[in-house]
Amino acid sequence: MKYELYYWPEIQGRGEFIRLALEEAGADYIDVARRPGGEDKMFAAMRSARLQELPFAPPFLKAGKLTIAQTANILLFLGRRHKLVPATEAGMFWVHQLELTIADFLVEIHDTHHPVGSGLYYEDQKKEAKRRTGDFLKNRAPKFLGYFDDVLARNKSGYLAGARLSTADLSLFQIVEGLRYAFPKTMRRIERKYARVVQLHDRIAERPRIAAYLSSEQRIPFNEMGIFRHYPELDR
Amino acid sequence: MKYELYYWPEIQGRGEFIRLALEEAGADYIDVARRPGGEDKMFAAMRSARLQELPFAPPFLKAGKLTIAQTANILLFLGRRHKLVPATEAGMFWVHQLELTIADFLVEIHDTHHPVGSGLYYEDQKKEAKRRTGDFLKNRAPKFLGYFDDVLARNKSGYLAGARLSTADLSLFQIVEGLRYAFPKTMRRIERKYARVVQLHDRIAERPRIAAYLSSEQRIPFNEMGIFRHYPELDR
Repeated sequence: MKYELYYWPEIQGRGEFIRLALEEAGADYIDVARRPGGEDKMFAAMRSARLQELPFAPPFLKAGKLTIAQTANILLFLGRRHKLVPATEAGMFWVHQLELTIADFLVEIHDTHHPVGSGLYYEDQKKEAKRRTGDFLKNRAPKFLGYFDDVLARNKSGYLAGARLSTADLSLFQIVEGLRYAFPKTMRRIERKYARVVQLHDRIAERPRIAAYLSSEQRIPFNEMGIFRHYPELDR
Repeated sequence: MKYELYYWPEIQGRGEFIRLALEEAGADYIDVARRPGGEDKMFAAMRSARLQELPFAPPFLKAGKLTIAQTANILLFLGRRHKLVPATEAGMFWVHQLELTIADFLVEIHDTHHPVGSGLYYEDQKKEAKRRTGDFLKNRAPKFLGYFDDVLARNKSGYLAGARLSTADLSLFQIVEGLRYAFPKTMRRIERKYARVVQLHDRIAERPRIAAYLSSEQRIPFNEMGIFRHYPELDR
């Protein structure tokens, strides 16, 4: 079956967490909004009068008759189908718990540059962004990274959950990629404290399908429209 | 089986979404941290060296051998066990999608009074809070409430998903309760626009187990330590 992914065409954003899972799974998918006329198709799909399972916002995924929104929800769905989530109930809830914690982390990363309102320009909240980013880099990023490092320390496989790769590992890879883009100075200074997280990142980057995807034209470069933005004045 | 819920003892917060599901299900549970010595027990459980499935933060739930964190994840687990989530795969992902959207809404509600940092006092970010709340009440709250009203309009049962009550209905009830506490003036002005949401709220409030719970001592009153805080200067 061919999946249809619907997400903003010009950024990695939340869609990228889903792309990484699809790529690792070797799944057949169309990135709908990146095709000619695709963005209109995305808006039409979101507002379709026939649709009960309304997405609040992109990303959403069509899989046959199903339309599923919310990044972590989509990853749970794909993970179950493509063995990127454990088959046991306990394993499923554990990986999903990790994904939801990564989603919380991502909101806080986004809000470093948009502490006042997501509908306003960064330029109109620069002062607040500086304060929020200061707190984020000092307190929140270390807390999240330390948490994931601790989870890795408690496991023997080098993956976050159980013996095998899961969507959570791919998502944490993307978090490290994004933090390095957004806050290169800070990350150079602090990432050695989270050696297990960095090790996992490097291990994911070397997986053949991920490596091929990352070096392809399909991978949209990070930019200042996305969630991870590099504003030098925010990076200490 | 007796569940053990672990959450901060003095606030409704995220724990309340789980309490409402447990109460509606008539489940047997202990609210661990509200018992004498319970908060210490919570910290010990969170840091236990034997635990692989580490919670990042409360709430978390112990169910036999399982320890599950992340509010929406816990609700998915309880919902499947107590028929508060549809048995079909499509129904399960739809209800969970709604829960995750409610979780996003809740983060934005929290950030109205803490736009700069969750570790700082409100008093140290009052100016930023005023700006953020302005954007929230003008743009974000109407967008979320309008979305849920639209979802209800597309369904025939008066519930958000399918023909029966789900955890998502209970959670949306709690959102309306909290918004009325935090922003009474604004809600009096705007809530008539979301009549289906208000109707659902009223219907949930009348359910016998919920009504009994709400009028009991178990229901912690809203206060200015929780997620929903009433600061008159933020309510227009």
